[in-house]
Amino acid sequence: MMIGQGFDAHRFAPAGTGRPLWVAGLHWPVPENADSTVAARFEGIEGDSDGDVAAHALIDALLSAAGLGDIGSLFGVGADAHGAGMHGVDMLHETVGHLAQHGYKPTSASVVIVGNRPKIGTRRTEAEAVLSEAIGCRVSVTATTTDHMGFTGRDEGIAAIANALVTCTD
Amino acid sequence: MMIGQGFDAHRFAPAGTGRPLWVAGLHWPVPENADSTVAARFEGIEGDSDGDVAAHALIDALLSAAGLGDIGSLFGVGADAHGAGMHGVDMLHETVGHLAQHGYKPTSASVVIVGNRPKIGTRRTEAEAVLSEAIGCRVSVTATTTDHMGFTGRDEGIAAIANALVTCTD
Amino acid sequence: MMIGQGFDAHRFAPAGTGRPLWVAGLHWPVPENADSTVAARFEGIEGDSDGDVAAHALIDALLSAAGLGDIGSLFGVGADAHGAGMHGVDMLHETVGHLAQHGYKPTSASVVIVGNRPKIGTRRTEAEAVLSEAIGCRVSVTATTTDHMGFTGRDEGIAAIANALVTCTD
Ligand SMILES: [Zn+2]
Ligand SMILES: [Zn+2]
Ligand SMILES: [Zn+2]
Repeated sequence: MMIGQGFDAHRFAPAGTGRPLWVAGLHWPVPENADSTVAARFEGIEGDSDGDVAAHALIDALLSAAGLGDIGSLFGVGADAHGAGMHGVDMLHETVGHLAQHGYKPTSASVVIVGNRPKIGTRRTEAEAVLSEAIGCRVSVTATTTDHMGFTGRDEGIAAIANALVTCTD
Repeated sequence: MMIGQGFDAHRFAPAGTGRPLWVAGLHWPVPENADSTVAARFEGIEGDSDGDVAAHALIDALLSAAGLGDIGSLFGVGADAHGAGMHGVDMLHETVGHLAQHGYKPTSASVVIVGNRPKIGTRRTEAEAVLSEAIGCRVSVTATTTDHMGFTGRDEGIAAIANALVTCTD
Repeated sequence: MMIGQGFDAHRFAPAGTGRPLWVAGLHWPVPENADSTVAARFEGIEGDSDGDVAAHALIDALLSAAGLGDIGSLFGVGADAHGAGMHGVDMLHETVGHLAQHGYKPTSASVVIVGNRPKIGTRRTEAEAVLSEAIGCRVSVTATTTDHMGFTGRDEGIAAIANALVTCTD
């Protein structure tokens, strides 16, 4: 049984960019008839990936538990990278396949999402189902805010802390 | 053996509010004859709970290890919630009872407290005893600062990161 | 099998101080012929230790997993402390010796380094080899930034989150 730790943080795109918001394996669509203020709260992440901090933190937790590098070494960095444009759940699938090739299997994983939005609690069990399906073991999702303190509290971005256990399959 | 991750952060109440300071299962009383500057360093947390970040992070670590939701789903949110006004240790007791009802038992847990105050090191073993008693397994407490960086470094608030292992009792 | 959590953060020394930069058990020398702007990116940490946040977070994870206090109780605090001036790897060696004396052995550990510099990915396997040798079990190192958010994103300092598993040797 080996343990891994993961962390990730991403900045929200500026209001009006219209980037889709993906967190914890889920798409968080702008509510119908939302005014611009509400719509801005469903603005996604800047950058080359879907910016799913929960998936990315879990990937690093799984890779480090297995001693197989990190998200950058497996998926690359930048717009031309192998992982560019991939959704977090697809990256998780590929990560677990990579572990399997090297004789490792996830047995348990957990991620805390830190930020003001989206409201994870409203879809927590759905997120857990999607992530558990992707990883092939039970994945727990919790969420918290920082009482308006720090970059997550100022709504600049979102962060996630994950841990995982993996075991050898041989 | 299943793993969980927890995180919590709370803002200190403004100086003069006289909110009692609870962290790591302990009350941190204002020293006798303290002037207002010293007393301000024992100002507690804003909000509906006692604001014990260490207890709350441990609760999320335990619940996520067992796949039983999070502190919000178990205790509610806001002044009318089931958990409003509860002390962290009592919430931990209830959390462990909830785990037991579902066939889970904590085997090990650990929490890091991040902030300038209170000085956890002065009562670390006492905190570990109280939290271990509440959870029913060994709980370790460590503490660190952030060299005056970030919201904890600016003394705006306090944060905690926890992890835990649980096992099935069946 | 017992679990521990660790966290550490340190502030970079001001540009021109010439403090050597140590992170993840490695010295990160200023590149030859570097101009002052580049050299400033290899400025080390302020304080009494080498400021190796990865080593320090791992030490707290190991000590808390074993229930043997924290880095402050083992190495002291301040310029006169037992640990003053020690490198992170030497502190890790001593930590593991302390665990052994009490009947504990690390079986797995992992650390995430959060900051803009140094570029851990360029020497990740080297860092893992040095830390694994020091601890006596596989140690994984991952690294990430915070998209220019928060104190690590503003390049004020560097942080690390670690976890570890230990077992009894008896
Ligand atoms: Zn990411
Ligand atoms: Zn709380
Ligand atoms: Zn340190």
